[in-house]
Amino acid sequence: MKSYKVLFAPTLTETRQEAGKTILDAARELGLYIDSQCNGRGKCGRCRIRVVEGKAGPFTQEESEFISLTDKGLGYRLACMARVAGDMTVLIPQENVLSSEAAKKVFSKRSAVVNPAVKAYVLDVPREEGAHIAYFERITTLLAAQYGLKDLVVDIGVLRGLAEVMKEAENIGKATTFVWMDREIVSVRSGADDACLGLALDVGTTTVALYLCSLRDGSIVATASTTNPQVLFGTDIMSRISYSSHHPGLGVKRMQTELVRAVNALIEQMTAAIGLSPQGIMDVTVVGNTVMHHIFLGIAPDHLGLWPFSPTVQGSTDVKIREVGLTANPASYAHVLPIEAGFVGADNVAVLLSEEPYNREDISLTIDLGTNGELVLGNRDRLFSCSCATGPALEGAHIASGMRATVGAIEKVRIDPLSFEVDYAVIGTDGWASRHAAGDLKPVGLCGSAIIDTVAGLFKTGLLGQDGAFKENGGARRLRKGQTGTIEFVVAWSHESATGKDIVLTQRDVRQIQLAKGALHGGCRVLMRRLNIDSLPRMAIAGAFGMHIDKENALAIGLFPWIEPEKMDMVGNAAGHGAYLALMNREKRAEANRIAREVTHIELALEPDFQKEFLRALSIPYKEV
Amino acid sequence: MKSYKVLFAPTLTETRQEAGKTILDAARELGLYIDSQCNGRGKCGRCRIRVVEGKAGPFTQEESEFISLTDKGLGYRLACMARVAGDMTVLIPQENVLSSEAAKKVFSKRSAVVNPAVKAYVLDVPREEGAHIAYFERITTLLAAQYGLKDLVVDIGVLRGLAEVMKEAENIGKATTFVWMDREIVSVRSGADDACLGLALDVGTTTVALYLCSLRDGSIVATASTTNPQVLFGTDIMSRISYSSHHPGLGVKRMQTELVRAVNALIEQMTAAIGLSPQGIMDVTVVGNTVMHHIFLGIAPDHLGLWPFSPTVQGSTDVKIREVGLTANPASYAHVLPIEAGFVGADNVAVLLSEEPYNREDISLTIDLGTNGELVLGNRDRLFSCSCATGPALEGAHIASGMRATVGAIEKVRIDPLSFEVDYAVIGTDGWASRHAAGDLKPVGLCGSAIIDTVAGLFKTGLLGQDGAFKENGGARRLRKGQTGTIEFVVAWSHESATGKDIVLTQRDVRQIQLAKGALHGGCRVLMRRLNIDSLPRMAIAGAFGMHIDKENALAIGLFPWIEPEKMDMVGNAAGHGAYLALMNREKRAEANRIAREVTHIELALEPDFQKEFLRALSIPYKEV
Repeated sequence: MKSYKVLFAPTLTETRQEAGKTILDAARELGLYIDSQCNGRGKCGRCRIRVVEGKAGPFTQEESEFISLTDKGLGYRLACMARVAGDMTVLIPQENVLSSEAAKKVFSKRSAVVNPAVKAYVLDVPREEGAHIAYFERITTLLAAQYGLKDLVVDIGVLRGLAEVMKEAENIGKATTFVWMDREIVSVRSGADDACLGLALDVGTTTVALYLCSLRDGSIVATASTTNPQVLFGTDIMSRISYSSHHPGLGVKRMQTELVRAVNALIEQMTAAIGLSPQGIMDVTVVGNTVMHHIFLGIAPDHLGLWPFSPTVQGSTDVKIREVGLTANPASYAHVLPIEAGFVGADNVAVLLSEEPYNREDISLTIDLGTNGELVLGNRDRLFSCSCATGPALEGAHIASGMRATVGAIEKVRIDPLSFEVDYAVIGTDGWASRHAAGDLKPVGLCGSAIIDTVAGLFKTGLLGQDGAFKENGGARRLRKGQTGTIEFVVAWSHESATGKDIVLTQRDVRQIQLAKGALHGGCRVLMRRLNIDSLPRMAIAGAFGMHIDKENALAIGLFPWIEPEKMDMVGNAAGHGAYLALMNREKRAEANRIAREVTHIELALEPDFQKEFLRALSIPYKEV
Repeated sequence: MKSYKVLFAPTLTETRQEAGKTILDAARELGLYIDSQCNGRGKCGRCRIRVVEGKAGPFTQEESEFISLTDKGLGYRLACMARVAGDMTVLIPQENVLSSEAAKKVFSKRSAVVNPAVKAYVLDVPREEGAHIAYFERITTLLAAQYGLKDLVVDIGVLRGLAEVMKEAENIGKATTFVWMDREIVSVRSGADDACLGLALDVGTTTVALYLCSLRDGSIVATASTTNPQVLFGTDIMSRISYSSHHPGLGVKRMQTELVRAVNALIEQMTAAIGLSPQGIMDVTVVGNTVMHHIFLGIAPDHLGLWPFSPTVQGSTDVKIREVGLTANPASYAHVLPIEAGFVGADNVAVLLSEEPYNREDISLTIDLGTNGELVLGNRDRLFSCSCATGPALEGAHIASGMRATVGAIEKVRIDPLSFEVDYAVIGTDGWASRHAAGDLKPVGLCGSAIIDTVAGLFKTGLLGQDGAFKENGGARRLRKGQTGTIEFVVAWSHESATGKDIVLTQRDVRQIQLAKGALHGGCRVLMRRLNIDSLPRMAIAGAFGMHIDKENALAIGLFPWIEPEKMDMVGNAAGHGAYLALMNREKRAEANRIAREVTHIELALEPDFQKEFLRALSIPYKEV
């Protein structure tokens, strides 16, 4: 039987598989989790994957039930139906589309002000008796008379269709004009129809989140997220930079295109779900770290990886939708938020917009935990920021049994101090596993919060020393020498897991967590020293990671400086929320540019204190002097 | 032998030809003139034609000597080498490229002010020691410090290449920035190199003219002209509108693309001739009548042909070069001049910019003669304009032996009052034919000025009555009954002509000229009545036609109201000159928008006087009451 090379992303796991095997079976063999409720019978449509390179076997009748023609064109398949038929690269996207009611609950804080960059103006259009007056000038005259708008320009795309629309508008007696920043007409409709959408786009290194909003009232009408398909080119920003450098010109183009395709597929799903056209998206705001920011704009990020690490542009950038290829009104603009400095990107600026530490009198520490940890400390008087190279361990990456915080991940762990037995909770089920009947959702791996819990539990039960070394004489049967000779702790046995393999935390994993917390905690200390404070009045933790972690356990291992748990806020996707605020209120855009410039960035590598703090913070917990 | 259908443009002459016949031979048989100095041996390269649809026989070695790969891709061939091999459409473009010395003489009036929309700023770029400052912000800081420029934005295309350029600029210590309207950076070069070009583009219904200029000093470095390939879709504006209406969406796209391709081919020839890159073209101004204006912008002109004949946009329009597809710096803008009203287009506005009647105290009449006649009468106090449907007869079209004023055309005719014998002058030779040896350049047909001369001569010698009817009893041997039964006058016998056919002026041709002059003269009278004047202090005649006509003869037949010949100026391509002025001096753009609004347009069809004036003006000369 012929066999072929199959590469799975985002994990970049490579395998050889026999021709004819389904992709679902191949993934399961490798311990890669793909959701399937019908157990591989092509009935539930949950096992959507994307064949990015190479070709799978023929597209089946079952698949056509769940996969649109557009998505088919992008390589979407059902993993249980698509069969290995050649070398291929398969992306397992973590897609999630919510519409209406569910989406409305995404942000607890709605925008207080609805003052978007694009506003709708409904016009009375009297029938023009005199001949020869141009349609564009007719519209600007009406906008001036009815709304006082002056000196307007118009997008060439709008101009090309204007005569048709205006003839219809004259028949109806109404037209609706969409004006960007009181300056440029980006759409004209006949009739009185001021419905228009905005999209807030949060481009993470690993995950892309979309918030589709009504520009009329600030409500959120749909949200979606997916794996950033750029993981195909490397899981972290340095490998994306490297991919771009090794493929001059084409590298950035390909990464940009893959990102936009994935976003467009979601836009189509979201708008279809609420019965609107993507052309009704009249404005887009975009946040992301500096590398994501550059790639989104089609700027090769090569120079970000080389001294002097200068970005191409720092301030906010408005770019025509058609120049980046998004499925939205092509005449509109995408507003890309400003970046702060180096790798402290527009995502962090958005977090600040959401948290507004610059408007507070009390000092607060804002931590955005993604693949990097980005910190801002201060208040209305001054703000200091730094970027900590925490690495991806806190996201569950580069950890033996690690995975992202998604369905099937163990999110909580507790270890009995006497028996050393383990209980855990799995995302997608309610409560602790010990209360569930067998046959319930089986765990696939450990996400970041479970890793923290495990390290904390091991430390509290005495199985792990202050230096992070396992105590082999701990006597627990779950502590054992693993296959590679290093010690590991078994969180779940093979018979309990979805992959049929033990879920473990290894000595190497603990070291990764120590390095991550050393960097994060050390960074906090350097900022605190700048402000001359040794305790924190308030802390806000942004990012998906923060939503799952157990505060006490995080403090127990010294992930950050001690603070009373009730002064610690888990603020969710504050970057996405900041993008939403900039979408709903144009004043926020000016505010973002101002604060991006006002924050004083501290380069940790150049701080004499950092090395000392880093070393202290390696200890569990932090070693006070 | 198999035969195929061959359609020749711009005349739209159709023929069947045997396979294997050269296109040159096929054209000669039809009396269509194609220049050839080597007599069809593929040695001179003068017989360039373009196969627009269908395919000619194989591309020959001889052709590769004269036709670049780009041009080959556009269908360019040598007519003497390309053979009929299937149904095809062949465009005989009247191309003309002048560079350097010859080009410099094109306009007698150079722009007095050099204040272009795009200016070059050479920057000292000190090596930046601090890391993390973005390249765009570095440039804007330098531009503010060294030139006081503020609030600049940058084109996304420039941004994408900025890091590379700025790294080089830092090594050299200099960068050159090109800024549009003190507002947007459209190009950045490393080093101190402020050379940059501008292109003034005059899009006529039949002919496109290009003026390539230095934006540094206002000099003209190359000029070119070619047949507007839109003639493939109809010779006049109404048929272009009709083509667009019958091919919704695609029609305008195709006409736009063909125009831009032809312009791009010339841009490449012109820039290659002077050793510069088309990317160095940093600004473009465009003039044309309303239909040409719309098609250039990619706006379907359909609605211009229907009541209420409203254009889509009247004021000037700035459109990114990449949105129209010109071969020039894609981040720059094309500035399309404003149109006045209805069919009185940006070309007429450009004529006004060139002639400035609005700055004069004395009243002047400006006539732009193309396929339509466009008139403006007035002075600094007020200006009236109208458009006369002269039809294409004055350009030599729709006339039995008519042709455009190009090499081979008879441009002057005189008729001996006693013998009725004819002498003529041919474009491309010096002086009268009677002074030349046989074998010199043979005439192909009559251009507009020769038609006027002939009509005037026939009238003066009594062969033509005041009513425009031939006097059959005139007794001249050149006056005869033609093949179709109508009377015609033979200007040149078949043995003298390049086509081997008699060159004639028919009774029908005289009627066409009467209708043209009726419209033109009638229009002038209506305008004069508005200003309450019955004689003209000054007249300026723009357009290629005016360059060739004999003033006395034009006045003799009453082409326009009587004026002393010395008060009549032939101002050449004033539309092109106006485009050039708007290119060199940005103030002219505001001026154009102002005067386009200030001119009072008169719709001749709605004027009660016009019909009366038209009828009087049909008479030769004008019938004074």
